[in-house]
Formats: sequence, C-alpha cells, structure tokens
Amino acid sequence: MTAYFTLQWEDDHVVMLDQRLLPGEVRYIPIFSVEEMAEAIRNMTVRGAPAIGAAAAYGMALAALTADRKHEKVYEQAAAAQTLLFAARPTAVNLGWALRRMRRRLDSAAGGLNNAEMAQTLLAEAHAIAEEDRATNRRMAENALALLPDEVTFIHHCNTGTLATVEYGTALGVIRAAHEHGKKVLVYVDETRPRLQGARLTAWELTQLGIPYQIIVDGAAAAVMRTRHVDACVVGCDRVAANGDTANKIGTYNLSIVAKAHQVPFYVVGPTSTVDLETPTGAEIVIEERAPEEITEIEGRRIAPEGAQVFNPAFDVTLAANITAIITEEGVCRAPFIDSLRAAVQRARDVD
Amino acid sequence: MTAYFTLQWEDDHVVMLDQRLLPGEVRYIPIFSVEEMAEAIRNMTVRGAPAIGAAAAYGMALAALTADRKHEKVYEQAAAAQTLLFAARPTAVNLGWALRRMRRRLDSAAGGLNNAEMAQTLLAEAHAIAEEDRATNRRMAENALALLPDEVTFIHHCNTGTLATVEYGTALGVIRAAHEHGKKVLVYVDETRPRLQGARLTAWELTQLGIPYQIIVDGAAAAVMRTRHVDACVVGCDRVAANGDTANKIGTYNLSIVAKAHQVPFYVVGPTSTVDLETPTGAEIVIEERAPEEITEIEGRRIAPEGAQVFNPAFDVTLAANITAIITEEGVCRAPFIDSLRAAVQRARDVD
Repeated sequence: MTAYFTLQWEDDHVVMLDQRLLPGEVRYIPIFSVEEMAEAIRNMTVRGAPAIGAAAAYGMALAALTADRKHEKVYEQAAAAQTLLFAARPTAVNLGWALRRMRRRLDSAAGGLNNAEMAQTLLAEAHAIAEEDRATNRRMAENALALLPDEVTFIHHCNTGTLATVEYGTALGVIRAAHEHGKKVLVYVDETRPRLQGARLTAWELTQLGIPYQIIVDGAAAAVMRTRHVDACVVGCDRVAANGDTANKIGTYNLSIVAKAHQVPFYVVGPTSTVDLETPTGAEIVIEERAPEEITEIEGRRIAPEGAQVFNPAFDVTLAANITAIITEEGVCRAPFIDSLRAAVQRARDVD
Repeated sequence: MTAYFTLQWEDDHVVMLDQRLLPGEVRYIPIFSVEEMAEAIRNMTVRGAPAIGAAAAYGMALAALTADRKHEKVYEQAAAAQTLLFAARPTAVNLGWALRRMRRRLDSAAGGLNNAEMAQTLLAEAHAIAEEDRATNRRMAENALALLPDEVTFIHHCNTGTLATVEYGTALGVIRAAHEHGKKVLVYVDETRPRLQGARLTAWELTQLGIPYQIIVDGAAAAVMRTRHVDACVVGCDRVAANGDTANKIGTYNLSIVAKAHQVPFYVVGPTSTVDLETPTGAEIVIEERAPEEITEIEGRRIAPEGAQVFNPAFDVTLAANITAIITEEGVCRAPFIDSLRAAVQRARDVD
C-alpha cells in the first residue's frame, strides 16, 4: 500500500486525486455525477488507460444511483452515461472495455431487478472492475520479474504507476516489484512531452516509493543507452491490436526504435483488457489529436510565437516488430503476437 | 536580409539579440567587455556554434581594445581573453577554432605592431570571421539545393538559423534557400527539449520568413515519418569528428536512428570549421552536462518534484553510420567521411 491513491469510492461518490496539480499539490476532489466524471476524464484530472476504465465504470454507477435517487429510469440513464463517457477520450480501449462490461451487467440486471437493485448492481460491478485491476497489476509485475537481472536499469515513458491505474501500476508496477523484491533498481524517467507525465507524476511516485531515478528529456534515450547502460525499456499501453502493434503515449514508438538499435529489450506492460482483438493492426487505431496549447504553453506561459502551427498527436503506434514482449496478467506474450495475445485473452475470459 | 540579426559591431561594442527572451520579446543588448561576452556565451544569450565562434572572436577583440584604452598590455589581455572565452562552453568546436585563429593573428601581429594596431588587427579579424560565416552559410545552402525535391518536407532539430550563426543559418539556411528557390516547403519543428530552441527560436524565425511549419514534440518524429511524409531531416552540428560522428543538440542521435529506420535522409549541415580532424571519433568528444533546472523548471515554474534527480547532457553524438551526408561550404561529404571530410577541410584551407 502506498500513502496515495488514484480514485476510491466513499459512501455515495468517488474521491479522486487531481493529477493535474501534481507534483506541486496533492489535492483530492469529490465526483458526484456522471457529468463530473466525464469532464474529469476529458480534462485529465484522471489519466492512464486502466484508471480511466475504472473511473468510467464508477461514472456509469453514479448515473444509475443518481437516476434512482431522482426516481428517473435507471436503465435509460445508465445507457446514456455509457455514450457520454465513451466520448470523453477516444483512444483508450479500457474505457470502452469497462463501459461494455458495465452495460452487459446492466442488460442482464434489467430483466428482474428494480431501479435501486440495478443501481447497486452497477456499483458492485464498478467495485469489481477496480478490484480486478489491483489484482491484475500485481500479477503482471510478478510475471515480469523473471525477465529482469538483479541489478536493473530501466527507461520508462509517461506515467504507468498507481496514478495510471487503480493501484500499483503497469510498467511502473514492474519497476516497483523489482525494487520490492530486492533488485538494485535505477530508472531513467522520460519527462514525456507534451504533458510531462514522467517529470510530474512518475518522478513523484518514485520519490514516494524511494526508488532511485533520473529524469531525462525524451530525446536523450539513445544517448543514455549508448553512453550508460540500460537493461530494459518498460512502457504501458492504451490499446494493443491483435498483431501486437501498440498505441501508447506519443514518443513510445520513437523509444522502441532507439531500443531496437541498441539491442535493449522493449517491454509493453498491460492487462488483457487493453488488447483489442477486433483491431487487426495498428493502422486501424484512430489517434487522438489534442490542443496545440499543450505544446505552445507550459504552466500557462507561452513558449512558441503567437500563431504558431502545431501537430499534437496524443499517441503513436509502436510496431509489434519493435516489441520484445507484451507482459499481461495472463503471462508474457511474445511474437507471433497474433497467437500469444489471443491465447492470453482467452485465458482471461476462461477465468471470468 | 532579414529584419533581425544575431550580433553586429557598432562603434566600440557588440550589439547582440538576447535569445533567451524570444519569442516573447525582441531585445538587443550591448556587450562592451570580454567578461560580458563570456557571460553571454555561458548563459546562452547567444547560442549556436557558429554564432558563438563569431561572438568569441569579438570578445577577444573587445579585450584588446579595452586593454589599449586602459594602457594595459594588449597581447597579454587578449591571450587571457582566449582562455576565459574558451571556458565558457566546452563542446562547441567553433569557439576554439575562432579563438585559435584570433590567437594566430595576435601572435603574428605581436612582432611589429603597437598596442593600438594590434587591437585594430584583432577587430578586423573578428569582422572577417563574421563575414566568412555569412558567405559560408550561403554556400552550404546552395550545395544542399540539388539534394531536395521541389516539394520538400523537413524535420528540423534545435535552432540553426540566423540566430545560431552570424546570418542566414546552417540547417535552417538550407530550408530557407529551398523556400527562396521556389520549392514548396513544410517544416516539422522539433521543439527541442530542454531549452525549447525549436519552439522558441526556429518557429519564430520561420514565422518571420513566411515558411510553413508545425511544431512537434521531440518524441513525435517517428509518428510523423510513419503517418505523414518526410523527405529529409536537417540538423546542425557542434563538432564533427574525423570519422563523421557528430556532436549536436541532445535528441539529434535519437532523430538519426528514427530517420534511418524509416529510410529518411539525414543531413548534417555545418561549415568545415566545425570539423575537428584532431578528434578521431565521437567517443572522444566530451559532452557538456548542464544544470538540472533546465529540465525541472520551465519559465521559472517547477515541473518536477523537489529533490528530483536529473541527467541533462546538452549534446549527444550521432554515429556517422546514421548520416546520409554532411553538407559543408566546400561541398557535400558522404561516406567514407574520413576521406570526404579531410578533403573538404583541405579545400577550405587552400582557399584561406
């Protein structure tokens, strides 16, 4: 357990850490309605694919509970919430995954339950999603341990820690498990422009956890690999296509190419819920473009000239050929990913 | 001619654009002494290898002129200035090159000239260095034109324009020449963390010149190459080793690896004065590490947690194997660079 958390249910609402204020300020905010939850996902108060999935599930539960309290139709309001929440962030597959799971629960409950029971069922399902995310992260980290030497230096991109999940983390969970198992760990932390999740969030988490790290600019990865020593790159994922192509934070594809050129293993860490077997390859993944101000302004201060044009894709697609392994809670998937990913997803479904 | 300049001699001092204030403010400051010049180089009021070379030459001239005015020994003061200025930035070879050239002029003048004549001789030599830089940049740009298609999309790293030189620019001079020769140009501008020379300076220059551009984060290069079209990467250089290994702004080596993976030509643009035949390979180039605050703070605002550790090399070394050609004022050098660079340097010396 860490002394901080991403989101947590309390009585009748969600309490959520406002990640936009980190590392300067640790402030938790209450989320009472689905509209507030959609906005929190959209404005990145909460970010990280698994955290977004759990947040969206609670958002649908909030819609149901609110509808019940107001004597509105729970089924219709929850279904409308699914649409609203799904539109908040287009790339994260966990968002759709969690919402579809909530919807299945809603549909199966709709036959025999009254409004109050339906709302409570949705809340229980959101709790289950959050709890499974916690367990899933631990299992991914354990699956990764055998891949790592006793002294291990990582490059890590973006934030994939507790803050990106419900608890523990995906790629940062692997780093954390290595540290907790007594390995000697050093992490080079990509600052991760434009939103600086590495410098702001990952550095903050590593400080809390007492794990040694050094922040680098994203362009320094190759220099670090060549002039120092790196054992592994670890990154999260926002969507993994059936062939292993992986959408993740912009800069991940760059890092994978640089790692390959230096024979540094490149590990993607993510739950099977992030694997989208319906998407054959990365070419079919729609990439969200975000506001130019993310690049032209920092902390509200203008960096670029007025009128500057910007291209600001939030994600890129790392080709499967650059990925050494995709580490899921159902085991370590290697090429050919078309087979190993399908098998991992099947194992997860068998467990469900 | 552009409506702005990097540095210019006026009566008895240098007028210099304070590049740290761009793009928000265009302010020129006077430099009256060698101490002020050394500080301006150190604190990056002036930056870019060729601009630093010219600035240092004027710094040595300022030391000589000041000594003459104060009836101090010009030779000793100018020689001391060489040491002071050389220490201001460790990586830029032009700095040492310009200072050694000034020293040779000083030594050859020391025999027969009086203090006033010696000081004027050094000023004339500084003027010559500045004028040759202007001419050199034009010739590099002309040499590059034949390599470029009529519609040409670039990725450009750091700033290599008028602001990095005395006038016109190196890599940005190539872009500018393409534009002036009627080619249809689009530039993806690496913002270039940590100091954001791309977003601040290159975007500002391209705006002044009316050349279309889009700023990207440094980590987006691979995504741009894969999902859009890029004809060439163009970068400057701070030092080119005899074998073609090139020290340049951090992130250049990353970009070269990404370009190679996408079969995008990677051009280094720099005068033969940047080629250091005494340095056999990039492994012998000492890389300057700069203050952690360049990464942990932006515009004086704290980004990373207090106490965060940082690794902040100012430059990296791009391996010659990743470079398609090195474009000098004496022609386009290709592999084996050990031969082509030596020949280009020899041609430049024959001209001198």
